[in-house]
Amino acid sequence: MQDPFDQKKKSILAEIGTTDETTPDASPKGTIDEFCIPIINLINSNKDMVTTSSCSGRVSVFLEGVKDINQDDVKIGAKGNNGRWIFVTHDPKDLPDWFSSVNFKYITDTSSYESTSVTTRYILYKFEPLILHVKCRDLEMANKLYSAAMSCGFRESGIGTNNIVGIRISIKLDVPIGFLNELTEELVSFVSQDYLRVITKLSEDRFKENFKKLDALYKAVESLNTLQNSTSKVETKEERRVRKMKEGLARREEVRALKEQKKKEKLEEQEQAHS
Amino acid sequence: MQDPFDQKKKSILAEIGTTDETTPDASPKGTIDEFCIPIINLINSNKDMVTTSSCSGRVSVFLEGVKDINQDDVKIGAKGNNGRWIFVTHDPKDLPDWFSSVNFKYITDTSSYESTSVTTRYILYKFEPLILHVKCRDLEMANKLYSAAMSCGFRESGIGTNNIVGIRISIKLDVPIGFLNELTEELVSFVSQDYLRVITKLSEDRFKENFKKLDALYKAVESLNTLQNSTSKVETKEERRVRKMKEGLARREEVRALKEQKKKEKLEEQEQAHS
Repeated sequence: MQDPFDQKKKSILAEIGTTDETTPDASPKGTIDEFCIPIINLINSNKDMVTTSSCSGRVSVFLEGVKDINQDDVKIGAKGNNGRWIFVTHDPKDLPDWFSSVNFKYITDTSSYESTSVTTRYILYKFEPLILHVKCRDLEMANKLYSAAMSCGFRESGIGTNNIVGIRISIKLDVPIGFLNELTEELVSFVSQDYLRVITKLSEDRFKENFKKLDALYKAVESLNTLQNSTSKVETKEERRVRKMKEGLARREEVRALKEQKKKEKLEEQEQAHS
Repeated sequence: MQDPFDQKKKSILAEIGTTDETTPDASPKGTIDEFCIPIINLINSNKDMVTTSSCSGRVSVFLEGVKDINQDDVKIGAKGNNGRWIFVTHDPKDLPDWFSSVNFKYITDTSSYESTSVTTRYILYKFEPLILHVKCRDLEMANKLYSAAMSCGFRESGIGTNNIVGIRISIKLDVPIGFLNELTEELVSFVSQDYLRVITKLSEDRFKENFKKLDALYKAVESLNTLQNSTSKVETKEERRVRKMKEGLARREEVRALKEQKKKEKLEEQEQAHS
C-alpha cells in the first residue's frame, strides 16, 4: 500500500504528464508555463514535495464581467458573467506594442469619463508575479520550503491546510486603463498610447525582478534537495567531499534565512499597525 | 512561571497600550488604525491569540527612492533612499479631491514621457487592502484562524513560522501616475486630473469591499471565540440555550468553511498552471 501523499503525488504527476496543447488542464492557458517547468521538475524530484499549481508571472489585460446592480455584492474585477481576457502573456518578449493589436478607442475629451457608473465594466491592466503552490509530505517539509521562499524575498508566502505552501511576492501593477462602452460595444481607453507604453516598460522591469526571484528560489530549493539526498546513499570519498561542501553552503544559507526570518518577525512585532 | 506565549502576549499588549500620537510605534503612521481597533480587541480577547501587526487598508501615493544604476538590483517601488509619501489615508472620507492639495505638474505634451529612464523615480498610487498578522498559541489555533480567514475570502492568507497567521486579500490598485523631474524637482503627473478622479472613485469601491470583508472576518473570529469560551464556565439554563444555538451556527460556518476550503484545494489541483 502506498501512503496517501505518494498516491496523491503520483496522480498529480500523471495529470501534468498528459497536459499539453491538445489536452489542456483547467487553467485559462491550459498548459504549464514554460518558465515554470525547471522549478516544477526540481520540486517534484524531491520525494516529499509536489507542485499543485503555478504561474511564472504574466501581464494580462482584462474586461470585467457584467455587474448586477441589484446584487448587494457588485464584484470588482470579476471574471464571471462574460468577463474576458483582451491580452495575456507570460513572456516579456510579447510585450512591446501589444496594444497595437487591440481595437481601442482612445478618448481625448476627458469629460466623457463622467459616463462611468457603478455597473461600468472596466478594463484592467495587470502585472502578476510568480505564484506556486506546493503540497508537502509533512509540516516539517512545509516549514523548510516556507523558510527557503521567505529567504528569497517571497514575503507573502504562507502555509495553508494539508501542508500546502503558497509561494508569493507582491511586485504588481494593477491599472484601470479603460472601460466598455455598452452602447457601441467599443473598448474605450481613457489613457493615452504614451501612458500604455510607460506601464508596458514598467512591466518589463517587473518581469526582470520576477525572474531574478525565480532563479533565487530555484537555487534555494536545490540546496534543500541536496541536503536531503545527501543523507541517504553510499558515497565515494570525492562525493563525500563535495557533499560536505554543499551541505556547508546550504546550512549557511539556512542560518542566513533564519536570521532574516527572525529580523523580519522582530520588525513585524515592532510594526503593530504597520501602516 | 508564565508560559512563553503568555509572556509574549503580555509584552505586545503592553506595547500597544502605550502607543499613541505622542509615543508612536515603529510604523509610518505611528498608531493603530482606528478601523482595526475592534477586531484587534476581539482577537486579543482570545487567550490563544495576539495581533502582531495590522493595517485596515489604505490609499497611498508614493515617490520611489533614489535608484543606484551601478547597483545590480535597481529596486522597484522601494521606500529606502529618500522615497517619500505624498499622500496617505486609511479613511475613504479623505479621498475626494486629495490631489488638489498636491503640487502636481500635469503634462499634456505626452512626448516628454520619453525622458524617463531606468533611474526615473516614479510616483505610484496604491490601494492596499486589510492585512493582519496574528500570533497563535499553537498550530491548532493557527489552523482554526487560517480557516476562518479563508472562509471570508482572505484567499492569500497563510501560516508562517511561530504560528503567526498572515491574513491577506488581493483587492488592489497599483498605478504609476507620474515621476520626479530631477532637474526642476517637480512632481510630474503623466495622467490627467480626470484619470485621478476615476482611480479615486475605484478606490472608494475597493474600500467598501474591504470593510465588508473586515466585518465578515470580525463575525468569524467572534464565532471562534464563542466556541472556545463556551467550553470553560458554569452556566445557567438560558446561557446554555444561547451557547448551544451559537455553537450550532459556528459549526455550520466551520463546515461551510471546510467545504469551501476543499473546493478551493480541488480547484487548485486542477489548475496546475493556473495562468
